[in-house]
Amino acid sequence: MITQKEQYEKACKVMPGGINSSTRLLKSIGTPFYASQGKGSKITGVDGKEYIDMCCAHGAGLLGNAHPAIDKALRKATEIGYVNAIETVYHEELASIVVNTVACADKVRFCSSGSEATMHMIRACRGYTGKDKIIRIEGHFHGYHEMIYIGGHPPQSEFQRNRNQPYIESAGIPQQFAELIIPIPYNDQEALKEAIHEHADETALVILEPVNFNCAGIRADQEYLQLVRKLTTENNIILFFDEIQSAYKKSFQAAQNELNIMPDVTTIGKSIGGGLPLSAFCGKKEIMDCYSPLGDVEHSGTFNAHLIPILTGLAFMGEASSPDFYSTLQKLEKQFHSGIEKIIDKHDLNMVVPNFGARFNMLLGRKTPAKNYEETFCHDNEVLLSIFKYCFEKGIFFHDYGGGPAHHGYSIQHTSENINHVLQVLEDALIKHKDRF
Amino acid sequence: MITQKEQYEKACKVMPGGINSSTRLLKSIGTPFYASQGKGSKITGVDGKEYIDMCCAHGAGLLGNAHPAIDKALRKATEIGYVNAIETVYHEELASIVVNTVACADKVRFCSSGSEATMHMIRACRGYTGKDKIIRIEGHFHGYHEMIYIGGHPPQSEFQRNRNQPYIESAGIPQQFAELIIPIPYNDQEALKEAIHEHADETALVILEPVNFNCAGIRADQEYLQLVRKLTTENNIILFFDEIQSAYKKSFQAAQNELNIMPDVTTIGKSIGGGLPLSAFCGKKEIMDCYSPLGDVEHSGTFNAHLIPILTGLAFMGEASSPDFYSTLQKLEKQFHSGIEKIIDKHDLNMVVPNFGARFNMLLGRKTPAKNYEETFCHDNEVLLSIFKYCFEKGIFFHDYGGGPAHHGYSIQHTSENINHVLQVLEDALIKHKDRF
Repeated sequence: MITQKEQYEKACKVMPGGINSSTRLLKSIGTPFYASQGKGSKITGVDGKEYIDMCCAHGAGLLGNAHPAIDKALRKATEIGYVNAIETVYHEELASIVVNTVACADKVRFCSSGSEATMHMIRACRGYTGKDKIIRIEGHFHGYHEMIYIGGHPPQSEFQRNRNQPYIESAGIPQQFAELIIPIPYNDQEALKEAIHEHADETALVILEPVNFNCAGIRADQEYLQLVRKLTTENNIILFFDEIQSAYKKSFQAAQNELNIMPDVTTIGKSIGGGLPLSAFCGKKEIMDCYSPLGDVEHSGTFNAHLIPILTGLAFMGEASSPDFYSTLQKLEKQFHSGIEKIIDKHDLNMVVPNFGARFNMLLGRKTPAKNYEETFCHDNEVLLSIFKYCFEKGIFFHDYGGGPAHHGYSIQHTSENINHVLQVLEDALIKHKDRF
Repeated sequence: MITQKEQYEKACKVMPGGINSSTRLLKSIGTPFYASQGKGSKITGVDGKEYIDMCCAHGAGLLGNAHPAIDKALRKATEIGYVNAIETVYHEELASIVVNTVACADKVRFCSSGSEATMHMIRACRGYTGKDKIIRIEGHFHGYHEMIYIGGHPPQSEFQRNRNQPYIESAGIPQQFAELIIPIPYNDQEALKEAIHEHADETALVILEPVNFNCAGIRADQEYLQLVRKLTTENNIILFFDEIQSAYKKSFQAAQNELNIMPDVTTIGKSIGGGLPLSAFCGKKEIMDCYSPLGDVEHSGTFNAHLIPILTGLAFMGEASSPDFYSTLQKLEKQFHSGIEKIIDKHDLNMVVPNFGARFNMLLGRKTPAKNYEETFCHDNEVLLSIFKYCFEKGIFFHDYGGGPAHHGYSIQHTSENINHVLQVLEDALIKHKDRF
């Protein structure tokens, strides 16, 4: 047994910041969260303390930790004898499920991470259109890479400047790349029209999260989405829905199916591997067929679509397509949201908790959902960090995302008792901080 | 049971080219190779035919298919209860092994693919130096992404032009990115001096494969490497060894340790996950500490360093550090290379088979190893494809890489009988084609 701080110090000696992903440092507790095991809805820390998992791997853990179906898939991999870098019938089986459940998907390819998926898909959009620029929405997130980690989440101080000089979100990304990015506010029809009017001839794609999990759960007006669809079609611009977060979250399909808006291409990920590293990019035949060896857009890699995540992906699809899966999640959803609404009403809290399926956002400092990124500058990050710190001390793990608009959720293995306990602790935490938001 | 062609047709309906990686189409046989299982040194096709695996997942399969130590690690994952997107003591344990075995590694971070590793490392090189350009070597390969999939493998017709106008290797990569790439020939001291002399002020890094597995196994002159080291140090340019292929291939360390040249940063991958998707980037403390939250270079991602590949990575390290591991591989190496040399001598074949540890290249049309990319334009791709087709028909799977300079290898689970059988079939194949190279 070792404390979180002791493990942090050991890890810092061999890994920058003691972690393998910069955002794994939890500002709320001052260290990363080092775990010794995860089972169902619970994670045990290296110090032996048990936590209810309200991060669920940022949305990848819709099955919870170590689900029996995933255990079974891992055993199956061993029994079959897994190969690597070679296709099997399982790849085609999983691809067929995606094609049948994601509206725009005529064809699909798999890779390991969400960042890889958006990168490869952007390349095909450019290859297909012969154009290079990207219109993107402020507050939306599409991966940690040079193509698109620009102009999405400028700090408040840079917010106004971002439209003219897209904010580069990491050191080491050359200025040249920012010149290909056109950031616009969400739900603003005029800004959209203007961007397309000015840049149609050089714009390859408009990319957006149909449900903006990565910033306050912002939803698009249906009219706005219809306009995006209309203008992109009219101007030979590809409409790219990034559904890494939203696919299979609310029902056994993508958000595009629910919203009845058909993009040209889509990325899906997070939960589709049942918690293992698996993402995918899919879309209309004519665009997908740009990939080599059919076309001249490259997408290769030894670890693309490794058989083990493909098998756990099939296990996820098996669970998620079973009759009870989403109705069980909906019961938890109803319980959580009616509970949190009661808490908000009872204490007249200045906050809102938008959701889509089993994932939700908490926005302090306003009572209605934000309509765009600017409207999310409504709370002091320190307050949210302090709330999450309190919850962590009481055995509830919320990932804090640095204190800004964050997303959280539960899994199919969470119980009604888990949700009740979370609501109790959250109520205490919110009351203690209510003067600050 | 289904034929390769039947499975190909099914797969093509839902995936572009019926595959998840463009290079999985084998030109030699006209379809991809669809497998039903892999065990040890063998892979069984969907048609029930068994093959000796001489691809070994492009180098990731140093343990062979479905190794018992990996099976055990998968069981351990289930027993522990795996978490996702959360660090554990196992991460620090694996990181410590890398730090202790890769010469330049003060610190390390893990991600899923080799492409991710080079992309994240390039970002830190730019962030650290405040410069953007990349000097790279023709014929070397560093991943399928916009940062560096430029200027590496121009076709012969574009070869001369590549130095002035770096050849973009995929559609969909904007011209702006090519302007940051400076390709030079390998082992050419004057070209290196000139590139650094001209571009030192704007060059962030020199990147190279110390053993150029990805093109004819070309090795650098020791003097050349010493000069690269000297000039990069003198000009505030980071020396980046891409050891995705070469680390842990010949001994329980990186090629840089063997060559006694210390780069500033290194990427490692392929076999380090025991066949599962795992790669890493590592280097000197002052550069690695550029990563957030210590510095301002971002490296994040839900699936970075997933616990299951971390556990299989520890299993790989356990196997590779056992006393017999590399001596067993060396026996196979000796057997294979003395065998192939005998075949070459006996039939006076115009070819050379360079190697480094358990991986080798076959270059037809010349009797001495190539010293640079230009020298690899020495054989007709169709001949190599025809040789591999013959081998495939006889139950030996060589990945064909389109017929150009390729790399192949064996694993710890390959036997002396396997190697003998491969040599016999290869001898027949080479004799049948000897008039063509």
